[in-house]
Amino acid sequence: MNGAQALIKTLADAGIEVCFSNPGTSEMHFVAALDTEPRMRAVLALFEGVATGAADGYARMADKPAATLLHLGCGLSNGLANLHNARKGKVPVLNIVGDHATHHMRYDAQLQSDIETVARNVSPDFVRTSMRTAELCRDAAEALTTCMGPPGGVATLILPADVSWGEGGTPQPCPPPPPAPAADAARVQEIARALAACGKKTALLLGRRALRDGMLQNLSCIAQHTGARLFAEVFPTRMERGAGLPHVERIAYLAELASVQLSGLEHLILVDAKSPVSFFAYPGKDSDLVPRGCQVHTLAAAHEDVAASVQRLLDATGAQAAQPLLQAPRRPELPRGKFTADKVCKAIGHLLPERAIIMDEAQTSGIMLPLFTAGAPRHDLLTLTGGAIGQALPCAAGAAIACPDRKVLALSGDGSAMYNLQALWTMAREKLDVVSIIFNNRSYAILNVELQRVGAAGAGEKARSQLDIGVPALDFVQLAAGMGVPGTRATTTEEFNRALAHALRTPGPHLIEAVVPPTLTGMKLRVLPHLLGSLKRLPKPLAQALKRGIVP
Amino acid sequence: MNGAQALIKTLADAGIEVCFSNPGTSEMHFVAALDTEPRMRAVLALFEGVATGAADGYARMADKPAATLLHLGCGLSNGLANLHNARKGKVPVLNIVGDHATHHMRYDAQLQSDIETVARNVSPDFVRTSMRTAELCRDAAEALTTCMGPPGGVATLILPADVSWGEGGTPQPCPPPPPAPAADAARVQEIARALAACGKKTALLLGRRALRDGMLQNLSCIAQHTGARLFAEVFPTRMERGAGLPHVERIAYLAELASVQLSGLEHLILVDAKSPVSFFAYPGKDSDLVPRGCQVHTLAAAHEDVAASVQRLLDATGAQAAQPLLQAPRRPELPRGKFTADKVCKAIGHLLPERAIIMDEAQTSGIMLPLFTAGAPRHDLLTLTGGAIGQALPCAAGAAIACPDRKVLALSGDGSAMYNLQALWTMAREKLDVVSIIFNNRSYAILNVELQRVGAAGAGEKARSQLDIGVPALDFVQLAAGMGVPGTRATTTEEFNRALAHALRTPGPHLIEAVVPPTLTGMKLRVLPHLLGSLKRLPKPLAQALKRGIVP
Repeated sequence: MNGAQALIKTLADAGIEVCFSNPGTSEMHFVAALDTEPRMRAVLALFEGVATGAADGYARMADKPAATLLHLGCGLSNGLANLHNARKGKVPVLNIVGDHATHHMRYDAQLQSDIETVARNVSPDFVRTSMRTAELCRDAAEALTTCMGPPGGVATLILPADVSWGEGGTPQPCPPPPPAPAADAARVQEIARALAACGKKTALLLGRRALRDGMLQNLSCIAQHTGARLFAEVFPTRMERGAGLPHVERIAYLAELASVQLSGLEHLILVDAKSPVSFFAYPGKDSDLVPRGCQVHTLAAAHEDVAASVQRLLDATGAQAAQPLLQAPRRPELPRGKFTADKVCKAIGHLLPERAIIMDEAQTSGIMLPLFTAGAPRHDLLTLTGGAIGQALPCAAGAAIACPDRKVLALSGDGSAMYNLQALWTMAREKLDVVSIIFNNRSYAILNVELQRVGAAGAGEKARSQLDIGVPALDFVQLAAGMGVPGTRATTTEEFNRALAHALRTPGPHLIEAVVPPTLTGMKLRVLPHLLGSLKRLPKPLAQALKRGIVP
Repeated sequence: MNGAQALIKTLADAGIEVCFSNPGTSEMHFVAALDTEPRMRAVLALFEGVATGAADGYARMADKPAATLLHLGCGLSNGLANLHNARKGKVPVLNIVGDHATHHMRYDAQLQSDIETVARNVSPDFVRTSMRTAELCRDAAEALTTCMGPPGGVATLILPADVSWGEGGTPQPCPPPPPAPAADAARVQEIARALAACGKKTALLLGRRALRDGMLQNLSCIAQHTGARLFAEVFPTRMERGAGLPHVERIAYLAELASVQLSGLEHLILVDAKSPVSFFAYPGKDSDLVPRGCQVHTLAAAHEDVAASVQRLLDATGAQAAQPLLQAPRRPELPRGKFTADKVCKAIGHLLPERAIIMDEAQTSGIMLPLFTAGAPRHDLLTLTGGAIGQALPCAAGAAIACPDRKVLALSGDGSAMYNLQALWTMAREKLDVVSIIFNNRSYAILNVELQRVGAAGAGEKARSQLDIGVPALDFVQLAAGMGVPGTRATTTEEFNRALAHALRTPGPHLIEAVVPPTLTGMKLRVLPHLLGSLKRLPKPLAQALKRGIVP
């Protein structure tokens, strides 16, 4: 058996079922070997950013990694941004990156580059070039163990062509992950004391595994029993929410709003989450969002056993008998009237099917989504974990492959959608049940906000033109049709309602282009901190959301 | 003046006129500063691969760098593949990569990554994070000097947000490049002796600056005088060719063909070119294409003065009075009959306007292009220097901005075109005179060839599906329309002829989708070496081309 065949068998034996691929010549033996392993599905992407983003979305929903198959350093480069998102979300992804044959590397041929350096940033815990066929599967098993974690992340195995085509490959079992430690008694007691002493001035900040159903129930019990608040990190990897599940308030993207959420806290307890910081720096503003004097505790870090740690805290606080605070079922009315991004979010809230998966990269247009879907049937929310735009469509495609029985909604801004739009082709090819909703406000609307926030004075015509993507106007319906995905353009609320209802009841991919005005146009973000005292001058739905403690 | 304003003035003072941009929050002060410098044009791209590829194409034609403006490590990542192409072509590109404010970096916010590591691969000679506003312009001037060379290449200046917005920026002059050495007398004499002793078994292999008009004339004189052959590297950065210019035969992409071209040589003289190696490795094949026993000489390396070195060799060989062998004007007939990729190439040869720029990434479909355009009016040919596909459309956009008075043709395979298709939007926005010709053969046709060449046995259904991009079929006319570019689909030779003639006489961007069968389908590439003796069983046009010494 050659290296490629043994490698695919090693992956399949470890339960890896999907490979998102964009191969080239150096991967041809791997491609040929696909037919030797019926347990491995190969999903072709037209661009590597689609393959890596799909692997991320798949792993978030399948709770296990997919492989990617990428063509040398340049193929990996094209997939880096979505691998960055996976890394920041601690999502397991196994990259198989083809390389030149070992004897060819010294010739510095056209596609030669230092692949290990390209991989290092997104794959800090495992980058290895497998130099011998006999050792390939051992390397692969080690890569898999590293990427599955805890904490989980991106591992990169570089596969020279001759190691792939060489005979003598031997499949290897993947060793189980080492047991993860739970919080020790001292740490748990310290946190329990803080909760007992000043519950209402304490918050639990939940990330990653803490945002899954079972864990949420226990954490909600602790919060109810002690008076503590529950926050979710600003960009959760995967968050289970909706009617019947504990409600958790997300930290806002805008540091000005996040500071309001966190003000007055004396203790902040991290549960598989990172201490909150501002997304960007702004002149004269703090980057650290933890209020001065607030003590930060870590109940469970990314490499630790979250479930066991939460259980210990439940016991230590005596909250076992408490009842979690569950979100009541509640949907907004079907929207009417002037068509805006908020109406899109409202229609989604009204129509969202049971167990849907929402991948939200709607940027400014999605600001009301958390509010309008809070009481919708239970669903999973995936978000842009690393801030590298262009994740929504690929990630949704991967999620749909992991969960073929669930409806996936991909929400994207127009600017973001143009990054990895090729994902639509994979959706059409694989007949994935994804409804892509593109908010076409014809601008990098968030940058109009940011231009104000950073205090960049004197934005003239040239500067403004850099944020304006409406000339020429993008036609997402034609773009989708060009890749085999049926699309609908909605310019009124009623058109959108109809299009969404149709897409949700029809299997296969659909795209809806929602032509909406930018959401935050009328708002003076620079003066937001001054407004937050009264909320009076904020847009009404945003002010309502803030009052309800559900902050965009 | 703040850092951003001083930086833009420093660039403009050094003659930099264009910035290809895809900015984010951390670049907002740079964006705001654009309006303070009327000499700087900002060209927005919807994806960073477009910005970097356009900067490459611009520099090839303008003979000076453009700047790019990219958003942190992920923005740079998205532009890496085309920067790889620029690096391999030794094309000057100055990346300005925004970063978080210096005081924000330690918080590891969502978009934080090690930008210097991301840049290292494509930008080995200059990567620097400018940490103080007062030093920014000195760093920028140094980056520019490095990137302009010789040899020229990619330089990356990382610009933290606070260094950009901080006051105290002072524009700096860009020092002139250090003088480049020419080949010394001993080297010139050694090469002249080889040419005198066995001219007919000697070849000059020309790359980069050696493929420009003035240099070509002198090199052709040397070849005519000594009997040596002239070869161009397989993927030239920029090659001037056509009627009235010396004809130079390109080394073939297929190592099997290149070996035929180079066989029998006793001396190979490199003129700003790299010694030829196989693009990929193949089981049991040599990677080094230099025939055994052939001696390789370097007349001028990338960091040296090519013009002076060639002049010295002209003098040493006594070829000053020789006449260069100039290509006679000759166009193919307008094609008729069954529509194939070869007919597209023939129609281009028939219709190519004077001083056109051809960016060729047609892969297998472009195999006959060199033959059919050899005697067309003089034109510039740009090619895929680093093998990272997705360069044609961005590079063509950049070339059109550098040469607004010339027609640009971008030739791309369907697979390649889908990598950075967003370039069409920039073409529409800037009203660029680019005719994009997409060869839609609905497959990664070159990989069908490569699958045979690497001897990957047992290509089953799954393997073949990885090379098939026809399900669903891509509709490039709709894709172009979605980005504001008018398009035409050609399914017959006559339709293509009409569409090309129309596009060439109409200003602004056009796309022509040529629906053609894969070019090399019927050909058994595995047995190619056995066929080369007789040429009888090769496709007729290919055999003709080989006989004429014009090898694809």
